[in-house]
Amino acid sequence: MSLRPLGMEPPPERELLCIFGTGDLGRSLGQRLLQTGYRVVYGSRRPHSCGPLPPGAQVMSHTEAAQLAAVVIVCVHREHYDFMEEVAPQLKGKVLVDVSNNSKKGLYPESNAEFLQSLIPAASVVKAFNTVSAWSLQNGPSDAHRQVFLCGDKAEAKQAVRELATRLGLSVLDRGSLSAAREVEDFPLQLFPEWRLPLCIATGLTAFFFFYLLIRDVIYAYVEQDKDISFRIMVSLANKVFPIVSLIMLSLCYLPGVMAAILQLYRGTKYRRFPDWLDHWMLCRKQLGLLALGFAFLHVLYTLLIPIRYAVQHPSIIRENKTAVFDTTSAWRTDSYFSVGILGFALYVLLGITSLPSVSNALSWREFSFVQSKLGHLTLLLCTLHTYLYGWNKFLRPSTYKWCTPPGYMLCLVVPSVVLVLKLLMVLPCVDRSLGRIRQGWERTGPEGEGTKPLMA
Amino acid sequence: MSLRPLGMEPPPERELLCIFGTGDLGRSLGQRLLQTGYRVVYGSRRPHSCGPLPPGAQVMSHTEAAQLAAVVIVCVHREHYDFMEEVAPQLKGKVLVDVSNNSKKGLYPESNAEFLQSLIPAASVVKAFNTVSAWSLQNGPSDAHRQVFLCGDKAEAKQAVRELATRLGLSVLDRGSLSAAREVEDFPLQLFPEWRLPLCIATGLTAFFFFYLLIRDVIYAYVEQDKDISFRIMVSLANKVFPIVSLIMLSLCYLPGVMAAILQLYRGTKYRRFPDWLDHWMLCRKQLGLLALGFAFLHVLYTLLIPIRYAVQHPSIIRENKTAVFDTTSAWRTDSYFSVGILGFALYVLLGITSLPSVSNALSWREFSFVQSKLGHLTLLLCTLHTYLYGWNKFLRPSTYKWCTPPGYMLCLVVPSVVLVLKLLMVLPCVDRSLGRIRQGWERTGPEGEGTKPLMA
Amino acid sequence: MSLRPLGMEPPPERELLCIFGTGDLGRSLGQRLLQTGYRVVYGSRRPHSCGPLPPGAQVMSHTEAAQLAAVVIVCVHREHYDFMEEVAPQLKGKVLVDVSNNSKKGLYPESNAEFLQSLIPAASVVKAFNTVSAWSLQNGPSDAHRQVFLCGDKAEAKQAVRELATRLGLSVLDRGSLSAAREVEDFPLQLFPEWRLPLCIATGLTAFFFFYLLIRDVIYAYVEQDKDISFRIMVSLANKVFPIVSLIMLSLCYLPGVMAAILQLYRGTKYRRFPDWLDHWMLCRKQLGLLALGFAFLHVLYTLLIPIRYAVQHPSIIRENKTAVFDTTSAWRTDSYFSVGILGFALYVLLGITSLPSVSNALSWREFSFVQSKLGHLTLLLCTLHTYLYGWNKFLRPSTYKWCTPPGYMLCLVVPSVVLVLKLLMVLPCVDRSLGRIRQGWERTGPEGEGTKPLMA
Repeated sequence: MSLRPLGMEPPPERELLCIFGTGDLGRSLGQRLLQTGYRVVYGSRRPHSCGPLPPGAQVMSHTEAAQLAAVVIVCVHREHYDFMEEVAPQLKGKVLVDVSNNSKKGLYPESNAEFLQSLIPAASVVKAFNTVSAWSLQNGPSDAHRQVFLCGDKAEAKQAVRELATRLGLSVLDRGSLSAAREVEDFPLQLFPEWRLPLCIATGLTAFFFFYLLIRDVIYAYVEQDKDISFRIMVSLANKVFPIVSLIMLSLCYLPGVMAAILQLYRGTKYRRFPDWLDHWMLCRKQLGLLALGFAFLHVLYTLLIPIRYAVQHPSIIRENKTAVFDTTSAWRTDSYFSVGILGFALYVLLGITSLPSVSNALSWREFSFVQSKLGHLTLLLCTLHTYLYGWNKFLRPSTYKWCTPPGYMLCLVVPSVVLVLKLLMVLPCVDRSLGRIRQGWERTGPEGEGTKPLMA
Repeated sequence: MSLRPLGMEPPPERELLCIFGTGDLGRSLGQRLLQTGYRVVYGSRRPHSCGPLPPGAQVMSHTEAAQLAAVVIVCVHREHYDFMEEVAPQLKGKVLVDVSNNSKKGLYPESNAEFLQSLIPAASVVKAFNTVSAWSLQNGPSDAHRQVFLCGDKAEAKQAVRELATRLGLSVLDRGSLSAAREVEDFPLQLFPEWRLPLCIATGLTAFFFFYLLIRDVIYAYVEQDKDISFRIMVSLANKVFPIVSLIMLSLCYLPGVMAAILQLYRGTKYRRFPDWLDHWMLCRKQLGLLALGFAFLHVLYTLLIPIRYAVQHPSIIRENKTAVFDTTSAWRTDSYFSVGILGFALYVLLGITSLPSVSNALSWREFSFVQSKLGHLTLLLCTLHTYLYGWNKFLRPSTYKWCTPPGYMLCLVVPSVVLVLKLLMVLPCVDRSLGRIRQGWERTGPEGEGTKPLMA
Repeated sequence: MSLRPLGMEPPPERELLCIFGTGDLGRSLGQRLLQTGYRVVYGSRRPHSCGPLPPGAQVMSHTEAAQLAAVVIVCVHREHYDFMEEVAPQLKGKVLVDVSNNSKKGLYPESNAEFLQSLIPAASVVKAFNTVSAWSLQNGPSDAHRQVFLCGDKAEAKQAVRELATRLGLSVLDRGSLSAAREVEDFPLQLFPEWRLPLCIATGLTAFFFFYLLIRDVIYAYVEQDKDISFRIMVSLANKVFPIVSLIMLSLCYLPGVMAAILQLYRGTKYRRFPDWLDHWMLCRKQLGLLALGFAFLHVLYTLLIPIRYAVQHPSIIRENKTAVFDTTSAWRTDSYFSVGILGFALYVLLGITSLPSVSNALSWREFSFVQSKLGHLTLLLCTLHTYLYGWNKFLRPSTYKWCTPPGYMLCLVVPSVVLVLKLLMVLPCVDRSLGRIRQGWERTGPEGEGTKPLMA
């Protein structure tokens, strides 16, 4: 008589697992399981002609294979799930692991795992391993995408699969009940969802400033001075658009933080949700910042390239410059302008490096916020200063305003200047203290405390 | 009659957890626990007006909530721990998880977790989750800071919390008994402790060389030649200081390794501790190297910027250069100088990339030491050679020694040259063999073996 | 009478572990175990003179120490395993953890762990921790190489060691039975095995193009025009070789993918293995691409450096250029050439960043393949276009073909052009559909289906 509680036996020397399907994933999974010390039996439609299987594995019909193991891993496309109904009697009480993915989202009304559960109600379906590729299973842990999502309705079945995954060297994240299967199945299909908004903003800004500067520079010169300088589109114009977009996006990355602080100050509490648009915006700050860094990188390359351009090296151009006298102020101004730009870019790169997952994971929360907030605002300050030094006193000259439009760099200074001024207000001692208290959980309660509405919703 | 050992039951379908406190962290933790399949009940001071809670969670008074669960997570600031004493009877024998952090170090005589334990001696306090932010819990695992430190006096209580954390997809690191709580609580408050010494060295070197070169270049020109070249501070001077500091810091990064080897050779054993300063120095080599890389990066940007500077492009400057005849040796020298510099910088960047946590974790120990030692010394060699080629035969000309001071690049060659010569001695076959044996654990024992003192302590 | 199943007791308050050997690794491991809450006893040859041990650990003779613990960690070099036979009676039934490494591969006929098992057949040997260094154990988890490989023949022994490693904050990967110990022991000794082929290709291509261009440029000028332009070797020649090698290697990185697709189309199935050379090639695509990025990086630095070179700045050179008239087409062409090059390089860098382990792990499979395939081919397209724009109409001029040889950039356009044309064919709707079906698992069966041979084997 065994006094051991069910499921609590010491693991038998070599546990047997059943895999349905002898496709890529089935084979790779089987091979890895065999390496890890499990015994593997395949269930196949055509047990005698299913191609090469990992050495050490057996293959038999689905029914036979299902009878032998307590855990059956279903490595079969959903379209072929129909055969499962025949095997249903043998699957009663077993753990069925659904590893399937679809080729696109919303193909079926319910998730594959829920569909499988409805086909075999007597089994415990667990969704797992769908984020793991055959490729990464074959090529070992170093390159593997090791995160496995798990969901299912039976805790014991989930526990069995969790152990299995852990022994395979994968890291498991439990996503709850089987109703989360849809989300888990959609994960490998997603294509940068959090990058969409920032990419749209970047594209929009680039297009706007490209046409704005095209009109102001190239078309203006053509119409008013009858000169064809269209060749400037490729480098000069690009090198005006990129830094403008970069600076605006960097400031857009710090604007929601300032807005959130104002909202908290106005409401006197941190316990009320931000409006959805602000939440959404705050969640894509990292992406905004990284895109801004990309544009800054392009700006640096384009700028450094200037002296080897044909148009710049051409003697006719060089001769034009020969009239000026050496002016120390100009030397100071341009050198400062370059120097501030380089320091700003170096900090920019530093911010980019610290947002690499492995680096940011190694930072404590305080270190991360120091880098992203303090250094981030310093970067914004340097880059804004760089742009002001670029403009210098040109804003006073009427010739700057061709066709009554301000140049691009003036337009792009609006948002960063606003962000910096607001941030400056936030770090004033009195404001900082109130904000600190609110973020510690303090709540202002007063006659108007209950009635306030979200500021900008 | 249950024959199951305590705590060994198969996990009940949906385990119930209690959370005290409905602040940010409490809500986020609750939401994540619910997603993972736990049931959650909140204990609150104001159960009827505590704001929005995750759907599916119940809220009641502290006393009621505490009675229902075996594990109580205390998401309350230490200042409000006083209410805990009222709940003490209900907490007897329960696992209390202290997740609190302080706003700065050394605020209280004992750690929050030890204070909580002293308030409720009958419960088993476990310190955990304090490094996890509400933000990362809400936004899932991809961006999360997943490392959780754990400490506590009762092994069973720790095991329960460890399981909980593992199911939440977090990775757990046991730090021992509850007396380690102080250290665990200080972790989120630390601000780059291992970067302090390298940053001080970098700041000191930068300041020293800035003023040294300011005097030698700008002030010398002003006093002796009555020329105002102060505009050179922004780019030219910076571009002298940065490479100097970079090279010195890179060599400081390899100096302790050589010193340690000498010490081991002198002592004839590796089983005696290095002096503390050497240990400390060796621990910050990575930071020294990364700062050096940062300075090298700035040097590259400043150098590439030279041709678009106002002062360089100005016709008066260009005209000055027009007298020389083309000299092939000079062409060879400057091209070699640039080429060696670029190759050195490329290796520098490679070293930087391999010190990213995710890259260095993917390397085997031998690969890592190959890159950091072999390639590192090669980088140092190339960068030193770059500086020697820059100097070339200028050290022979008396005009180099303005006011009898050597130029900055000569000063900065001292340390790297010493490191390279010492390293060269170390790889001589006879020295290398002795060192190899010592590092394998061999010990020289002799009449003088016992009496030796640490070489440089 | 205890009803608890063996090995299932709740963990005793502080479990005792035995460590044989008081060297670096033994001490560090002991210290970490003590921190984690274990009790540690050392077994030593010389219990009274074995140097400083972590505070809290006891030290005694091997025999005494072995009797106390169920798990014995052997931190001793294989050369000293002989003493183990004396201790054999005390080790019966215990778990022996072999952590040893050798100084090079193939030193002994069998792995250390198997040798240990043969010495003490009555114990259960588990190979583990050999990839963990003393250094990383001492300095905590942030920098640690945390991956631990495990193998052994007894599942229970492995389970005990797995738990131990997990509590130390390490992540465990089970590699199967003790026969895998050789592979596990070889892991820390390997030196970039997957980089060898790409490095050979890079070296070969660099050497070939260096001598090819040396002959065509420098020696040709010397022989035919009697000019010594050997100083161009350092920068100009290097800056021709690097982009050529970079472009070829980038295309070699995408060639096997196209080949595999052709092979699958020809065979009408994906279930037959690719020839070994193709498999091998596909496995080193990442390394090929990263080396190509390295060469591209050098190319960018060398190019940006051009204007500050002595030979370029020299007035005799500048004067030569003064005759041309400004030509808008040339301005367009060179600016496009630069612009396309910069955009190509920026995408190149993006590809490099996404192949950092921590970044690629954060991507879903679809995102990863979007970046590496779509963006990768776009990068190849831009870089090829950059080279075509560089060549422009020079291929029509007879003076281009010095000594009847084509210039280097023409040679290097062959492979990328082939890859791009083939890839273009692959994305034609009809081909794409067939390929899609095959990759979904569809198999073409027909009279010739069985008889086909691998296309290029």
